[in-house]
Amino acid sequence: MRAFTAERDWERFHDPKSLLLALTGEVGELAELFQWLPADDARELAGDEPLRTRVGEEMADVLLYLVRLADVVGVDLAEAARRKMELNAEKHRA
Amino acid sequence: MRAFTAERDWERFHDPKSLLLALTGEVGELAELFQWLPADDARELAGDEPLRTRVGEEMADVLLYLVRLADVVGVDLAEAARRKMELNAEKHRA
Amino acid sequence: MRAFTAERDWERFHDPKSLLLALTGEVGELAELFQWLPADDARELAGDEPLRTRVGEEMADVLLYLVRLADVVGVDLAEAARRKMELNAEKHRA
Amino acid sequence: MRAFTAERDWERFHDPKSLLLALTGEVGELAELFQWLPADDARELAGDEPLRTRVGEEMADVLLYLVRLADVVGVDLAEAARRKMELNAEKHRA
Repeated sequence: MRAFTAERDWERFHDPKSLLLALTGEVGELAELFQWLPADDARELAGDEPLRTRVGEEMADVLLYLVRLADVVGVDLAEAARRKMELNAEKHRA
Repeated sequence: MRAFTAERDWERFHDPKSLLLALTGEVGELAELFQWLPADDARELAGDEPLRTRVGEEMADVLLYLVRLADVVGVDLAEAARRKMELNAEKHRA
Repeated sequence: MRAFTAERDWERFHDPKSLLLALTGEVGELAELFQWLPADDARELAGDEPLRTRVGEEMADVLLYLVRLADVVGVDLAEAARRKMELNAEKHRA
Repeated sequence: MRAFTAERDWERFHDPKSLLLALTGEVGELAELFQWLPADDARELAGDEPLRTRVGEEMADVLLYLVRLADVVGVDLAEAARRKMELNAEKHRA
């Protein structure tokens, strides 16, 4: 993502607030794929084609902006997720 | 909105969680209009046509789903906003 | 909202992208009130106290930031909503 | 995430629409950390403690719900992201 952005000279657009709005936009597109699905059938419907590919594309967009934001602010996203899972395990004992 | 929904037999789609995802979708579309604008120029750029009309349309979509959600859960949105402004005025004294 | 903001000297914070992130934050708080409710019971549960008051407060926050954003970019929100309803009525004939 | 959810008997809560609202909630919390930061200083401010740790925690929450949603609907998120990066590289030639 860092190389992709640099090669296109897009770094000047990638301040944190802009990336967060882009992330919000992609979450919105993902939400639109699910909004009118019946809650009980949503898992099955989203797991079948052609919806599954579209869902995967929007989820990828969310992930890519999240990874880009992490890079810009210097967060190690994988490490943060591991730590959060440990905190969650302590907070909510099985 | 209530009549519009009833005339199209869309009431069965308008449970709160679905409306909230639709609201999220519209906020996402609004965010996409602003995401790459330079922060310092965003107000002026969004105030000029043709962007202003598009911004107005997306803001209208957010408002319409918010009003519809309020109707579905029985919230008086105008009254809730008045009360919240009073609470804000107490919380943040000028 | 305009007076409230001016009296607190908060106008410098209220550029469109910041207001949009604040709107996203409030939509997120509203979503959190509904996220784990069973879809079929969400309307009834959110219509009962104490949840209804909390839902009203979060919906008010969304509305207030939306109104503030409209003011900042010069959108007549009520007029935009009326026009959007007319467009919707043409697009989706009953 | 799958084991964590199963051990707490939370699978019944993790339908796609509920997970999407939870994701929206976490994106909202992340947005709240940035909303009033000056755009030009946001990167530096968010890269310093104590904000960086809080940003990392909220980003982790977004990632964890995204990963959980991917598991529920059967999307290979890493593969989807790789494919999306290839599509982006074709769409936006450097």
